[in-house]
Amino acid sequence: MLVLITYDVNTETAAGRSRLRKVAKQCVNYGRRVQNSVFECILDNAQSVLLKSILTDIIDEEVDSLRFYYLGNNYKTKVEHIGVDRGVAVDQTLIL
Amino acid sequence: MLVLITYDVNTETAAGRSRLRKVAKQCVNYGRRVQNSVFECILDNAQSVLLKSILTDIIDEEVDSLRFYYLGNNYKTKVEHIGVDRGVAVDQTLIL
Repeated sequence: MLVLITYDVNTETAAGRSRLRKVAKQCVNYGRRVQNSVFECILDNAQSVLLKSILTDIIDEEVDSLRFYYLGNNYKTKVEHIGVDRGVAVDQTLIL
Repeated sequence: MLVLITYDVNTETAAGRSRLRKVAKQCVNYGRRVQNSVFECILDNAQSVLLKSILTDIIDEEVDSLRFYYLGNNYKTKVEHIGVDRGVAVDQTLIL
């Protein structure tokens, strides 16, 4: 299923900037960065639970937030993009 | 239906910062800011088309991007939030 992960990390402190880097690094392992703080990940249920747990451990819940949007398997008609594109579709084969 | 709007606006220039403010201002008219660059809007089809057109006119498609995620009417089980909350649910009545 497609899981959209968006995050707001408070980067006013060095600790916050470190959390931001850690969140992004974990998300990169699981999906595609489509915007600065938006990742699209193709995950099964177990992976989704695991990633949520990892990210929750990284953030400071008093000042940061994570949002997960579960778009299911038939997500292609549910997503629309306008403007500059950061990368390839999450399930698209990269020809190198 | 719930339409999730995420945006990346390049703020390296004054013009970019102006575009960012304009995009946010339009989105505020239609929904709730759940994260810095993430809005949740309850829109019908006509409103959705209109807002997309307004936002597309504001951004610079060479350097900015918009993404629209259509989560339908049964979206409550499809959204999960962890951490600090910026506001009330988009369809929640505000008691003042």
